Amino acid sequence: MSRYGAAAVIIGNEVLSAKVVEANGAHLIQRLKARGVPLRMVTFVPDEVDLIVDAVSRARSVAEWVLTSGGIGPTHDDVTVRAVSLALGRRVVRVPSLAEEVKRHYGERATDEALRLADAPEGAELITRDGAWYPVIACDGVFMLPGVPQLFKLQLETVLPRLRGTPVFLKTLYLRPGEPELARSLDAVALAMPEVAIGSYPQFEPGLDYKVKVTVEAADRAQVEAAVNALLEQWPSGAVVKTEDDAVC
Amino acid sequence: MSRYGAAAVIIGNEVLSAKVVEANGAHLIQRLKARGVPLRMVTFVPDEVDLIVDAVSRARSVAEWVLTSGGIGPTHDDVTVRAVSLALGRRVVRVPSLAEEVKRHYGERATDEALRLADAPEGAELITRDGAWYPVIACDGVFMLPGVPQLFKLQLETVLPRLRGTPVFLKTLYLRPGEPELARSLDAVALAMPEVAIGSYPQFEPGLDYKVKVTVEAADRAQVEAAVNALLEQWPSGAVVKTEDDAVC
Repeated sequence: MSRYGAAAVIIGNEVLSAKVVEANGAHLIQRLKARGVPLRMVTFVPDEVDLIVDAVSRARSVAEWVLTSGGIGPTHDDVTVRAVSLALGRRVVRVPSLAEEVKRHYGERATDEALRLADAPEGAELITRDGAWYPVIACDGVFMLPGVPQLFKLQLETVLPRLRGTPVFLKTLYLRPGEPELARSLDAVALAMPEVAIGSYPQFEPGLDYKVKVTVEAADRAQVEAAVNALLEQWPSGAVVKTEDDAVC
Repeated sequence: MSRYGAAAVIIGNEVLSAKVVEANGAHLIQRLKARGVPLRMVTFVPDEVDLIVDAVSRARSVAEWVLTSGGIGPTHDDVTVRAVSLALGRRVVRVPSLAEEVKRHYGERATDEALRLADAPEGAELITRDGAWYPVIACDGVFMLPGVPQLFKLQLETVLPRLRGTPVFLKTLYLRPGEPELARSLDAVALAMPEVAIGSYPQFEPGLDYKVKVTVEAADRAQVEAAVNALLEQWPSGAVVKTEDDAVC
């Protein structure tokens, strides 16, 4: 399986049990798209070490960068640092400089439990930014972000400049025929041009003058055009209701 | 790892690439909660057989029931039946009765490609309902639902009666002290009462008179009360700003 782009692991019982409406995943999807970073997988798991270890390992097997959300904090349900360390095969160590930060931030409230915030996988990098007292802990391409939505948004911007984007060219075609009639031509072009990603989405809203949205995407504008032309050759005239261009960078 | 409740695999490039705002995951979370079915994991994967096989296998390792969304249809990017069959170690077969349905539904538009809709894992059950011409294909506890949100919603209701729910009792406490001061007591009670799930969520909105929301959950109301009492004993008087009850069934 080729390993590229990003993957995310969203951690927290509160999401899976509908106690909160999840916001970080949707925000992450939009921001990665805007930056042109392909997103390979998103997994929502509870605050359970085994499940997090497994999800982080799977994410690392398909993606170059892994972002986690949640489970960063001083309480018993904050197990992300421990789980990520296990997934990476690294020990958990207390980072002296971070312990100093925790003490400075909490003052007399810096209990032993608060100092858990100074733990990290051995060898981790601490990425700091103005406006956040606590850093993003990063190790082996895994970036650990807080789950609280305001903090997640802030710290995602700390991480994004480290992820290389690639431009993607996209053309969307709106088609009168249904999927049964289109499937053979889509098959043929998808098979002949593996570097182009073709998507087919039937539409069921009443009153539309098209039945299917077809998306054609590639890293190269010429490949998109070639695939669209190959499709148009196979379709009857009048099949396409309209087209849209959308270069994502 | 114990295997209970449900897990979901949401399939489709269009979700991960932000072409559509994902709706099925959020709807599923709400409906499972309303039915009292614990949700163990949700994974979003692209239309790639390897990633779907892997996600379905992981989902089956933690959950009794697995629901998939998307990748059901006649086009090249509809690979769910094939991937689920691989994950289950079953052959893909054409189901004669379903082929008849497809022919009836599409009439002269029932191309060879449309007939792919009649494929299923060998031994699968077809669950039908009034108002939907196409069934839910179910096999070994995996239920394959369509990705189009209107159809997903409809067919989820076909499946839900098959999933056994268990009542869950929940109490939420709003606390003045911060997580550093609370962590030790939460640790102690979480460790002493493993049958109770305790969550701790720091709040960062300005103007609140509490710093942390603590949730206490169990299948038994008496266990919830016992855990709450054990916590209250360790907290200074006046720590709790308010409490909320919420029995989910």
